[in-house]
Amino acid sequence: MTNRLQQLYPQMKARGIDTLLITEPKHVYYFTGFACDPHERFLGLVVSENQEPVLIVPALDEEAASQHSSVKRIATHTDTDNPYTILKQQLPAHITSLGVEKEHLTVVRFEALHDVIQAASYIDAGDILRNMRMIKSVDEITRMKEAVRLVEAALHNVVTQVKIGVTEIELVAELEYQMKKLGAQGPSFDTMVLAGEKSALPHGDPGTRKVQANELLLFDLGVYADGYASDITRTFAVGQISDELQDIYDTTLRANLAAIAAVRPGVTYASIDRAARQVIEDKGYGAYFMHRLGHGLGMDCHEYPGVHANNEELLQEGVVFTIEPGIYLPNRGGVRIEDDIVVTADGIEVLTTYPKELTVIGG
Amino acid sequence: MTNRLQQLYPQMKARGIDTLLITEPKHVYYFTGFACDPHERFLGLVVSENQEPVLIVPALDEEAASQHSSVKRIATHTDTDNPYTILKQQLPAHITSLGVEKEHLTVVRFEALHDVIQAASYIDAGDILRNMRMIKSVDEITRMKEAVRLVEAALHNVVTQVKIGVTEIELVAELEYQMKKLGAQGPSFDTMVLAGEKSALPHGDPGTRKVQANELLLFDLGVYADGYASDITRTFAVGQISDELQDIYDTTLRANLAAIAAVRPGVTYASIDRAARQVIEDKGYGAYFMHRLGHGLGMDCHEYPGVHANNEELLQEGVVFTIEPGIYLPNRGGVRIEDDIVVTADGIEVLTTYPKELTVIGG
Repeated sequence: MTNRLQQLYPQMKARGIDTLLITEPKHVYYFTGFACDPHERFLGLVVSENQEPVLIVPALDEEAASQHSSVKRIATHTDTDNPYTILKQQLPAHITSLGVEKEHLTVVRFEALHDVIQAASYIDAGDILRNMRMIKSVDEITRMKEAVRLVEAALHNVVTQVKIGVTEIELVAELEYQMKKLGAQGPSFDTMVLAGEKSALPHGDPGTRKVQANELLLFDLGVYADGYASDITRTFAVGQISDELQDIYDTTLRANLAAIAAVRPGVTYASIDRAARQVIEDKGYGAYFMHRLGHGLGMDCHEYPGVHANNEELLQEGVVFTIEPGIYLPNRGGVRIEDDIVVTADGIEVLTTYPKELTVIGG
Repeated sequence: MTNRLQQLYPQMKARGIDTLLITEPKHVYYFTGFACDPHERFLGLVVSENQEPVLIVPALDEEAASQHSSVKRIATHTDTDNPYTILKQQLPAHITSLGVEKEHLTVVRFEALHDVIQAASYIDAGDILRNMRMIKSVDEITRMKEAVRLVEAALHNVVTQVKIGVTEIELVAELEYQMKKLGAQGPSFDTMVLAGEKSALPHGDPGTRKVQANELLLFDLGVYADGYASDITRTFAVGQISDELQDIYDTTLRANLAAIAAVRPGVTYASIDRAARQVIEDKGYGAYFMHRLGHGLGMDCHEYPGVHANNEELLQEGVVFTIEPGIYLPNRGGVRIEDDIVVTADGIEVLTTYPKELTVIGG
């Protein structure tokens, strides 16, 4: 954590930020190790080269903060304090440019802050934090592997028991129960189970649709473990499926493998999207793959960077993202196969391990 | 819904707002009946006396909007549009003061909006919406009673099966499974189960701590039903507990009952907080009740008003809030007893029905 704070100073300097106020709870956790959901209360970490970092927490979180935070200078505010007055007491005397998180601060909070602090300028530090978060440490990757292990165990436990006639939402309830039982903090997003023609809806809602024979069954789910998310999609055949559905499965799998084969530091995100999309276009299914290939993964389930045709940035060692090509045939069925991967010095490590060959279930 | 829109116009006029932009998805639902999670995309409802209301939605939500919205004029934007340019086309030609939700708009979004719209002034309409939401209709209270019924059923099903040795997170998994099975939309916040000394942490995290004999076990949980939240806390004794823990239980319960006895229209929120706090201070535990007495409850689990020592506003018929005094003895244990209540014409209706006498479990 202390090392991460050290990395901030030169970036603040380069942007003309003399003092930085971090308010997004996940970022406070990232820099201090103290995880807190302050609800509507103020939580902030003040970083400045001219003083020791200071954490400002609601009074009722003081004990937890002093136990878990690596930043040991802690100030508190009660529900009857103006938290920005407490903040001002903890800031250096003269602030020219205060770095803030403009994507996290609401206008109300910004105005309340400005009323008290009156900095000459406010600079958005969102991209500094986003770029730091993008490169995962060994510890972060270890946590993500655990999040993958847990979600794959939950998926395995439920998939092996699918019976004809069970509904999508019953499978969702079973999956989320397994996640918690296995020790996950919880789902990293709304668990998706889509049967038959509903698997062709990339944003479908699980409902009372029952699993039937001779159709596809799509699972898209993830968990949080120790603050980090996993995200996996697998599609299964319930009994025998048509040649057409078999063909979109095989094509999606080849697209997934082509993207994985293309990953290494120094190539563009666009080229990874292209590697998968080309396989699908070559089979004539291009119009049925209408979303980006993937997205960054970490403390949020969807984070920077986006893996799509317009992202010409270069892959860097330590970035974790999803590879999730899909083919969706309206009213017939859809396939998506999603892996979580980390870019390594010499290529790629695929974090997800669940088998990808078409598996027949429900028998 | 239309009736709610009609109520807006005089309030806008009184505040000098000629056009109002509503962006919080729950408020769009409140006024149109269209529930939408637009993720990072723009969603807005434009209300002005000089034109028909207009709803602006992401293109992929157009069909759902036209099915569910009572506002029938709908504009759309795609991922390659600047949504604020689309918004500008839907606004009256001359805007002096644009009402916005400053608690919902982030600074990033506000700056993007202002770049295009360039209104002379922006007036926060948050309090207008907040005050409207605060007074619940009969229909809203009916939904909240259902949310209470579901969470109490889940709590009952799990509490009656607690055994020594079960972990906090196993109990969380059981509770959330029960919620879903019973038909709730999901938890209204992270379900909290804290055993022994951990019950002394008002914002503790459930973990692998096992339930042991002769200690306290605290449950704080809620669900959403039909868009409305419940929120309840009960604390139990696992086997025999010390006289000290028994004393903080009795004191917390008396504080809870004193607050309930004080509720009626026309008294201040501060007086309700005081009624509970006095009981706790009189027993010498004042320093161990370090949070406000409660909070408003409705479409959000924490909403306006706050029930604390500085809120001199007067209680009104139809307001729903929580009453949740607590006493937290570090390293020994904590008690919190939380009810959801509605202010009625002649006093109070307590929505939560779960027994509050100290109950011994785990036997």
